[in-house]
Amino acid sequence: MAISVDTFFLNPDAQGTLQAQIQQMIAEGILSGRFHRGEKLPSSRKLAGHLGVSRITVTLAYTELLANDYLTSRGRSGYYVSENAPVPPTYTPPDRPLDRVDWARAISHRFTGGDTPQKPRNWSSFRYPFIYGQADPTLFDHANWRLCALRALGQKDFSSLTADYYDQDDPLLVEFIARHTLPRRGIAARPEEILITMGAQNALWLAAQVLLDDTRTAAVEDPCYHALRDVLVQSGCRLAPIRVDADGLPPESLPPDTDVVFSTPSHQSPTTATMPLARRRALLARASDLDALIVEDDYEFELSFLAAPSPALKSLDRDGRVIYVGSFSKSLCPGLRLGYMVGSEPFIRQARALRASVLRHPPGHIQRAAAYFLSLGHYDAQIRRMSRSLHERRKIIETAISEHGLTIAGSGVYGGSSLWMRAPDGTDSTALAMDLARDGVLIEPGTPFFSGPDRPTQFYRLGYSSIPAARIAPGIARIAQRL
Amino acid sequence: MAISVDTFFLNPDAQGTLQAQIQQMIAEGILSGRFHRGEKLPSSRKLAGHLGVSRITVTLAYTELLANDYLTSRGRSGYYVSENAPVPPTYTPPDRPLDRVDWARAISHRFTGGDTPQKPRNWSSFRYPFIYGQADPTLFDHANWRLCALRALGQKDFSSLTADYYDQDDPLLVEFIARHTLPRRGIAARPEEILITMGAQNALWLAAQVLLDDTRTAAVEDPCYHALRDVLVQSGCRLAPIRVDADGLPPESLPPDTDVVFSTPSHQSPTTATMPLARRRALLARASDLDALIVEDDYEFELSFLAAPSPALKSLDRDGRVIYVGSFSKSLCPGLRLGYMVGSEPFIRQARALRASVLRHPPGHIQRAAAYFLSLGHYDAQIRRMSRSLHERRKIIETAISEHGLTIAGSGVYGGSSLWMRAPDGTDSTALAMDLARDGVLIEPGTPFFSGPDRPTQFYRLGYSSIPAARIAPGIARIAQRL
Repeated sequence: MAISVDTFFLNPDAQGTLQAQIQQMIAEGILSGRFHRGEKLPSSRKLAGHLGVSRITVTLAYTELLANDYLTSRGRSGYYVSENAPVPPTYTPPDRPLDRVDWARAISHRFTGGDTPQKPRNWSSFRYPFIYGQADPTLFDHANWRLCALRALGQKDFSSLTADYYDQDDPLLVEFIARHTLPRRGIAARPEEILITMGAQNALWLAAQVLLDDTRTAAVEDPCYHALRDVLVQSGCRLAPIRVDADGLPPESLPPDTDVVFSTPSHQSPTTATMPLARRRALLARASDLDALIVEDDYEFELSFLAAPSPALKSLDRDGRVIYVGSFSKSLCPGLRLGYMVGSEPFIRQARALRASVLRHPPGHIQRAAAYFLSLGHYDAQIRRMSRSLHERRKIIETAISEHGLTIAGSGVYGGSSLWMRAPDGTDSTALAMDLARDGVLIEPGTPFFSGPDRPTQFYRLGYSSIPAARIAPGIARIAQRL
Repeated sequence: MAISVDTFFLNPDAQGTLQAQIQQMIAEGILSGRFHRGEKLPSSRKLAGHLGVSRITVTLAYTELLANDYLTSRGRSGYYVSENAPVPPTYTPPDRPLDRVDWARAISHRFTGGDTPQKPRNWSSFRYPFIYGQADPTLFDHANWRLCALRALGQKDFSSLTADYYDQDDPLLVEFIARHTLPRRGIAARPEEILITMGAQNALWLAAQVLLDDTRTAAVEDPCYHALRDVLVQSGCRLAPIRVDADGLPPESLPPDTDVVFSTPSHQSPTTATMPLARRRALLARASDLDALIVEDDYEFELSFLAAPSPALKSLDRDGRVIYVGSFSKSLCPGLRLGYMVGSEPFIRQARALRASVLRHPPGHIQRAAAYFLSLGHYDAQIRRMSRSLHERRKIIETAISEHGLTIAGSGVYGGSSLWMRAPDGTDSTALAMDLARDGVLIEPGTPFFSGPDRPTQFYRLGYSSIPAARIAPGIARIAQRL
């Protein structure tokens, strides 16, 4: 029996080459059981005519399917579904069962319902996306990343692509971070003191799991990154939110029973405040008095286009009490899920064992591609390109903001990719964001960053890392209008 | 001042093209502060002569560095380190501080010291690697994976490469798994019931965290995958090890207070026993009586070259009490860290939220590349190729084993990639493994798979997924010799 040419159609939204689409169409027909073994396919001429593609395209698709044993060719008589083609499901999937489980009882831990708000997955469809922490096609060095990833896909790197590293990481990446990235933050570390993580989020989570429990107290900045607060709450520890000022976390406010301090000295999240050197020393001294540890999230230090970044807190640490967290999410892109953690060996050993239990290791291919991107200098070149564009956008957004009389509550003195804004008292920035969404403007309400019952509602964050320079001024105008 | 040509040398072990190596050499010299702004580089002729490479190679490297603003060219007078070149560290890294933290006190949870043994990172250096769960360059379809990964690196897929998916996954991959992979296991699931995980390890860990605490009892097969037992112990639950027989887990042995059962019905790990249909129904009935949940690890069902796999336990589940775990680690390769979990929506919602806290999502690029590899049919083609080779190796190893009078304790009626072996009583397989290592033979001692104080020591596992067919017989001979 022959397969009718009419069962074939090209999906207008399909991706990939025409040949790939035709291959896929036939493979899926076989896998889904629509085409059966021994059935004859339309001739390449007929199918090409039907689909309106060149005959060679169809022939190439057929040839590839022959090679994969989906099809066989019977000389002049044409192509047939191979007798060795994969078997479609031999039993029809049952209807979805009626759920008889009492999930409210069965679930022992709930992880939904924290402070982390639903993020706008459709952010790129906004005309004025003042979104924070997403990649900008015009800033990411896609071409060179592609080359490095391609190289990391080569035969030489087969094992870094395919091997189970168990609890280990790619030695190339670890070595580059130890020899080139950390020294630029004033940090000296041996490979055993470095763990590659699935972004900073994963590093902060690992640190919380290793260092906290219901007998420990964690001091956290207020406001702070909401996902961090959710991680700390999940650890069961006592939470001590410390209100930050224009210089970041005030050390004297740390409660005496503090076990671990989570801080963002370079670039307070979300207020963008930078901690002066004197306060960094004071923070270390206070931590030493309390015998507390400090987890330093040094995100975005790379984007310091207004002034050189100050040395990391970790570089001033003489006791080994600072655990340093770095991330490639802002400087490369978040989709790679790549970050790292630096700390004393006993700590890293536990974090490594936990990571192995949870996920083994970040995919080797991504680690190797990043190692190439870094060691070939593309990374630094990209950061300089990014910094130039962000600097330009920064000037534009600051001008627009002052022209429209909006109020900046915090704007990182070193640079960065966002501004912390204050709307007039009484403004509900969550409602404001929803109104603005209707105007195609995406802003981030500030309320979820704060701790406790009566959180300030008038703050909001404006990211400028993904919005084209030309859209900034009109976007700000719309915000001013709504206010 | 000019940079002496003598400071340049090609590392004999370096990877990548000569041009890439030269670029890297110069970029690193600048980044490490050895070369300073304004310093003159050797002429391309001079450097080419010194390194013994063609002049055009050096010129191309210089040109790329020009483009990245590492170098500037002053017409005839040559190349100089650019004034915009990245700044080397402005402060010298301090000596590694003396650690003043009492880590024994500071660490609240220990994750080292579980049952999971140190895995042999150097397994590929063994002449007879009967290793389990690593990729074989001759079985993995590297060429087509490379093409799919390359396609996933294209401009069209920019966002899947770079975007922060928040708590989401690649819709293409989820849809393919729902429409093509799960139906072949008799499972019908909607996208909201599917979560992509960092391999099966990550799925099992997530399930344990969501479903267990110190008030719950988890029944686990004995012997079982040691890393799973470590995950369960970390959850704080009561552990009920159930000794398996030739048909896998005996349902009648489940204690009345069982809350969650962790089982591997298709292919018991490590004994390879397959649970007959009748017992699967009995297990579901027993779970329903106890109102217990079942986490089904369906690893390796793809490698069923001796007989068609029986439908998954999940396909017989009418209550929604089975949580299904699948993995691409055996069928593609472990280095991708890609697996998936299927369960009722309330459960998946919690697992998704936890995953978001821990790591956000598996890298988008890997998900997209896998989606292409699957949908183009390369995946099924690879599994058939793998199955053919594994089938051949299986025959060879079984012949060699009977010739040398070794004892198979379990061999998987459907196929798979390992055998469960029993040495004469009194044998310590851990000592045996160490002796054999000296003969270049790598086997996996069975003791860590067992629970409790007096664990059987005479079992061991032989994997044949990474050892060349020709090495199998001589390897078995050496094992027989040692016994």
